[in-house]
Amino acid sequence: MSIQRLHLHIENTRKKASIFHTLPAHWAAACTRHRALARRIDVSFGWDGDVLETALTNADLLIGVPANRDKLASRAPRLKWIHATSAGIDGVLPLDWLPRGMAFTNNSGAHGHKTEQYMVMAYNLLNSHMPAIMANQHQHRWEALFSPSITGKTVVIIGLGDLGEAAARAAKKIGLKVIGVRRSAQKNRHADKVVSYKQLDRMLPLADFVVLAVPLTAETRGLLNGKRMDLMKPTAGVINIARGPVADYRALETRLRRGKLGGAILDVVDPEPLPADASLWTTPNLIITPHISCDDGEHYIDISLDLWFENLERFLAGKALKRRIDPKLGY
Amino acid sequence: MSIQRLHLHIENTRKKASIFHTLPAHWAAACTRHRALARRIDVSFGWDGDVLETALTNADLLIGVPANRDKLASRAPRLKWIHATSAGIDGVLPLDWLPRGMAFTNNSGAHGHKTEQYMVMAYNLLNSHMPAIMANQHQHRWEALFSPSITGKTVVIIGLGDLGEAAARAAKKIGLKVIGVRRSAQKNRHADKVVSYKQLDRMLPLADFVVLAVPLTAETRGLLNGKRMDLMKPTAGVINIARGPVADYRALETRLRRGKLGGAILDVVDPEPLPADASLWTTPNLIITPHISCDDGEHYIDISLDLWFENLERFLAGKALKRRIDPKLGY
Repeated sequence: MSIQRLHLHIENTRKKASIFHTLPAHWAAACTRHRALARRIDVSFGWDGDVLETALTNADLLIGVPANRDKLASRAPRLKWIHATSAGIDGVLPLDWLPRGMAFTNNSGAHGHKTEQYMVMAYNLLNSHMPAIMANQHQHRWEALFSPSITGKTVVIIGLGDLGEAAARAAKKIGLKVIGVRRSAQKNRHADKVVSYKQLDRMLPLADFVVLAVPLTAETRGLLNGKRMDLMKPTAGVINIARGPVADYRALETRLRRGKLGGAILDVVDPEPLPADASLWTTPNLIITPHISCDDGEHYIDISLDLWFENLERFLAGKALKRRIDPKLGY
Repeated sequence: MSIQRLHLHIENTRKKASIFHTLPAHWAAACTRHRALARRIDVSFGWDGDVLETALTNADLLIGVPANRDKLASRAPRLKWIHATSAGIDGVLPLDWLPRGMAFTNNSGAHGHKTEQYMVMAYNLLNSHMPAIMANQHQHRWEALFSPSITGKTVVIIGLGDLGEAAARAAKKIGLKVIGVRRSAQKNRHADKVVSYKQLDRMLPLADFVVLAVPLTAETRGLLNGKRMDLMKPTAGVINIARGPVADYRALETRLRRGKLGGAILDVVDPEPLPADASLWTTPNLIITPHISCDDGEHYIDISLDLWFENLERFLAGKALKRRIDPKLGY
């Protein structure tokens, strides 16, 4: 009796940066790390839909979410599991296109180590007045802006998933007090305290830093609005590694221009790329990074495939997949 | 029999930033932390020499190095110990003005915690292409410059005093391999390896980051010259927290402009403040910070006085002072 082989189709898009492309070389390398499992898989590769329809007719597994998701159940009668190569899946919400019973997983878990590195930097950038120092450099201006020690300061981290937990690890590494805010209020070993969203407004006045690390959903859109910013200390800083629309950037800009907030580090904006005429570019005490906080520029796909193989083992054993999206919650 | 009291004169200068001024309030606070020792001290305060000559006639101890150091032995017949409130004393070299037998200490030890915080940030700034990203922000340009993980990269730290050791602690905290370079080649618990200056040129090709943390002396002037920069990888970065003239910035600028080096973070330049027309301001992949890497903007003087009291206890007990400058070495 031969073991049943599965057809995996890997769908790439040139719309994404090349570090997110799963190439045959990545696949081959991953197969050497996961030999036994890989033997069960036949793989095909496609780019922006070029061979998608043919592949879907007999694909069991799919990596990459196709641009056209209409009538997926009939186009892909054998398809049981779709895996997104990103953590954020707000681009394909709502999940009304997902056939009932079909598994949909995201790439949460691939971003932790880079996020931790970015956050260690971001906290210190804000604490040491680097947004202003960078603006001074552009004006050829030497102004000795001294800063206090960062040790013992408080960060409020909203969302404690892969990214939020990495932000908490980074914070503990440099001696911050960590207050996590999450739906469940479930404890986390990297947070000194975790509260539910109901208590968010009572935590904001304590923060020297507020970190946004929630998925973008209908519920989190506009979460950090002007009213909530006004609960923060005028010296406090905002760091957004989630999605632009989770904060009200118009409200943020107004407060930064008026000195009502200390600073901000934004890795995400809306839209991306940020248009050249956007006023955010020149907002004082603001640093913009081009959505690079969480992705390993060298090994993103290697890490992603390792996580996928870990889930494949569960899939073949009939176990529940990790990182499976709840269609109701949208993450 | 009454215990002999000592006269301490604290000499301040308005030429230094206010965080370096030792005010009566700092002294009073320090006295509550060091009651027994403080009872032995009568203190006077002066600004830019206003009461200096009178104070010197009967001062036993001096904090702050006076601008006029001529004939100190005759002007200050009882003076036994001068303490500099900075770690770098290159501004008063050579020490031919120092009367024979008079102790001269520096403030090494007051800078470690801030330096560590700055270095954690600086390594990550270089690794994540932030100099280029900051330049892009200035040009309103969104370019997704992804970067690899920093873990496992190698830093060569030249000088392992207070600053160099802090740079090593920061490096270990974020998973770097640390090679220290120091005169003695004496091991350090935060360095994976320590070598002497003779081996410097063999270490430079291994570095992803080179950190300058040596005092400026006749020997260290121009230490990181163009020839040595050419031993480094073209992707490697330089971080200078020592003194500007320890590196050849003209050579550095040429290499950065030609893409022969990855980047640089300079907290020190020569002269300071850097003139507005200096070409360093606009050198690509270069971040300039205004000599703020190592000084706690809130508690610098508190920390400094604690170190001074620690030494006072040794002084009163007739023990050798810590952080005493060797007039021959100049540090």
